[in-house]
Amino acid sequence: MAGHSPEPLGIPEREDSADRRKTPAGAGPHALDRWLANKFMEAIGSPPLSLTLWDGERVYSPRDPVAGLCVHDRGALWRLVPHPDLAIGDLYSLGRITVEGDLLTALETVYRSMSELDRHNRMLRTVQRVILSTAPSLSRARANIHHHYDLGNDFYELWLDRDALQYTCAYYPASEMTLEQAQRAKMDHVCRKVWLQPGESVVEAGCGWGGFALHMARHYGVTVRAFNISREQIVYARAWAAREGLSDRVEFVEDDFRNITGRYDAFLSIGMLEHVGRGNYSHLGRVIDRCLKPDGRGLIHSIGRDRPWPLNAWIRKRIFPGAYPPTLREMTQIFEPSGFSVLDAENLRLHYAATLREWLDRYEQRVDTVRGMFDERFVRAWRLYLAGSIAGFTRGSLQLFQVLFARSGVNAIPRSRAHVYEDGEAEVLGESA
Amino acid sequence: MAGHSPEPLGIPEREDSADRRKTPAGAGPHALDRWLANKFMEAIGSPPLSLTLWDGERVYSPRDPVAGLCVHDRGALWRLVPHPDLAIGDLYSLGRITVEGDLLTALETVYRSMSELDRHNRMLRTVQRVILSTAPSLSRARANIHHHYDLGNDFYELWLDRDALQYTCAYYPASEMTLEQAQRAKMDHVCRKVWLQPGESVVEAGCGWGGFALHMARHYGVTVRAFNISREQIVYARAWAAREGLSDRVEFVEDDFRNITGRYDAFLSIGMLEHVGRGNYSHLGRVIDRCLKPDGRGLIHSIGRDRPWPLNAWIRKRIFPGAYPPTLREMTQIFEPSGFSVLDAENLRLHYAATLREWLDRYEQRVDTVRGMFDERFVRAWRLYLAGSIAGFTRGSLQLFQVLFARSGVNAIPRSRAHVYEDGEAEVLGESA
Repeated sequence: MAGHSPEPLGIPEREDSADRRKTPAGAGPHALDRWLANKFMEAIGSPPLSLTLWDGERVYSPRDPVAGLCVHDRGALWRLVPHPDLAIGDLYSLGRITVEGDLLTALETVYRSMSELDRHNRMLRTVQRVILSTAPSLSRARANIHHHYDLGNDFYELWLDRDALQYTCAYYPASEMTLEQAQRAKMDHVCRKVWLQPGESVVEAGCGWGGFALHMARHYGVTVRAFNISREQIVYARAWAAREGLSDRVEFVEDDFRNITGRYDAFLSIGMLEHVGRGNYSHLGRVIDRCLKPDGRGLIHSIGRDRPWPLNAWIRKRIFPGAYPPTLREMTQIFEPSGFSVLDAENLRLHYAATLREWLDRYEQRVDTVRGMFDERFVRAWRLYLAGSIAGFTRGSLQLFQVLFARSGVNAIPRSRAHVYEDGEAEVLGESA
Repeated sequence: MAGHSPEPLGIPEREDSADRRKTPAGAGPHALDRWLANKFMEAIGSPPLSLTLWDGERVYSPRDPVAGLCVHDRGALWRLVPHPDLAIGDLYSLGRITVEGDLLTALETVYRSMSELDRHNRMLRTVQRVILSTAPSLSRARANIHHHYDLGNDFYELWLDRDALQYTCAYYPASEMTLEQAQRAKMDHVCRKVWLQPGESVVEAGCGWGGFALHMARHYGVTVRAFNISREQIVYARAWAAREGLSDRVEFVEDDFRNITGRYDAFLSIGMLEHVGRGNYSHLGRVIDRCLKPDGRGLIHSIGRDRPWPLNAWIRKRIFPGAYPPTLREMTQIFEPSGFSVLDAENLRLHYAATLREWLDRYEQRVDTVRGMFDERFVRAWRLYLAGSIAGFTRGSLQLFQVLFARSGVNAIPRSRAHVYEDGEAEVLGESA
């Protein structure tokens, strides 16, 4: 199984000529090393973090540092400057950079200083925008998804919620909720927004291990056809549906969203858009147009941005190949050309930070089991990915959008959103167009 | 007072050479007239409406017509074809076109047939898009607003809600509400979304007669500075504040939103964006950026579209000069470049249809008083405008967006939107960035 190879993320122990500079024992930093260390701190926006080199020399010490970085060899230092985004992640995973103090605090500090920097760097943004306007092909999409989601179901079972295996943002309407309760609240929040009625048919694009599809069939009296290109997840989902006796009402299809057939009352996609690629948004709109009944409703749930900006280079290379978090403006490319009307958009950014904190806690509690599955590089990389995501959602460099939509002119919609927050039936405001 | 001139909308009795063809008594239609009548029906998408000419001849009779149009003279017919959008409105106002059956039904039918037509006319859309990318100057904006809002406060008092004189979409969370209740519900809906706290300061951009500003000061314990470029409305609002003893807590400023000074906890704009012009959206964003405190929240409430499309030509010429209803995509131009994060967007389209129905009912009940203020052309034009707007919101060619926002990374926001729908305090989810 792919997930149980010793190095599923592809982080190399030694990568380039700079790596050959790995410091022999006792070799202290030169003046050039000190200069480079300061250049690096400048490149990441001069955050209030100290920087210590391999001999214990503190070469960067701002007033009131909130945490510290330690670079343990010369090769690591020389790899940091040209591509800090990518190198920090790899070197942290390799243990060649470590953090003094709290990892999360250090990451939030770097996120803040780098986002200040971004504001002043419009040219870079333009260049990256051009690079990012690509759409993965079907085969590329399959490889990208395999890289992340086929790490092994037992790995994800260690730290996701136990009831529904939701690998997407939970919803915490009350602070004392468990992860299990918050994931259930998320599923119900979506079902209420999209106003599912008993007997309706739902298509789900990107269904993970099937927990949400099964929840809908179990609690909302609907039939579901759920699409996913991850072979491992589909196999898992089918077995789960069989165990629950729901195979007659939930069908799991191993295929790309572009191949969805049939007509449905509701279209749902929770956490797939990040992997669709910006160039495919209007294609996704046409797929929804094709598969939604005239009065149907749809909801897309996706990580996003307030301004166009690529995902962190290391996350894109090691964790989520091909992923891109769109802005609301970019998301409208799904709806506008195909004649949909946005009814409701909600930003749940801080709920994702809360979800990730719970995931990271559970991950650390089971880290010895993870060590039995993967090597130490993986263990550290995954910790960095979860902590870095908490920092991103907390600082506001990442958003979480839920967008509800229907065709333009559909009037068979609830009078207000009150039904999402109350028990009881929603009252319809208008007649169908 | 401008509003009491006999022809405030500028609809001419005779406009062009075609008008000289006004039919003498007894002159029946020629073959060319019949051909032209059919061309006109084609140009508006061949709706299921009959068309009758001045001698009673039915020259267009579809199967199952839902209503009928009557053209009462040759000149009217010859003006219809080159610019149907504009001519229908003017000729209806002059009584040279009338409707057999229900006006609203006829309008909804034309809206539907024309929107079907629009789908197939992308070139026209591109041309109109270019024409529309203009931003009114300060003096042009003032003239545009004077045209509509300075028709006379006593005219609007005839048919708007009596308590708060809200000339914007109301909110009907329950069907049995009066217009007064629904306008109050709208104001409370906005105040809850934007999470007003006692002691906070609010700036309102485009405040109408001041009813909302006074409501906030009265019920939410805030101070308000409200901007409007309509002299008549500002004079009215100041007198109202004085009568209510709220002049110390609500200041009405006769000035353009571009000249807003000061720093506030909340920025609100209800029904102004339609008049701002697309070219000014990023300027509006910079104004909000300048005047909002670091943790401030803002809400913009505006008529909109699902796809870019100009306002009906007649409405733009006679009723709302310079008005444009933006798409959500276009609205993001306010938020994205200035670093704001969209927290919540709601589409209240059908609530505007309900509001307009109530306005039209009250207008018809007081139409004799209107006749004492303006001439018959005005009476008919205003009826057409209200009924046409009902049709637009009911058919989905017009939308009503409320967009809530804060700066990227502001965490002092409510945990969920439940507080909008329940009484009681909102719980804060995160700490401030």
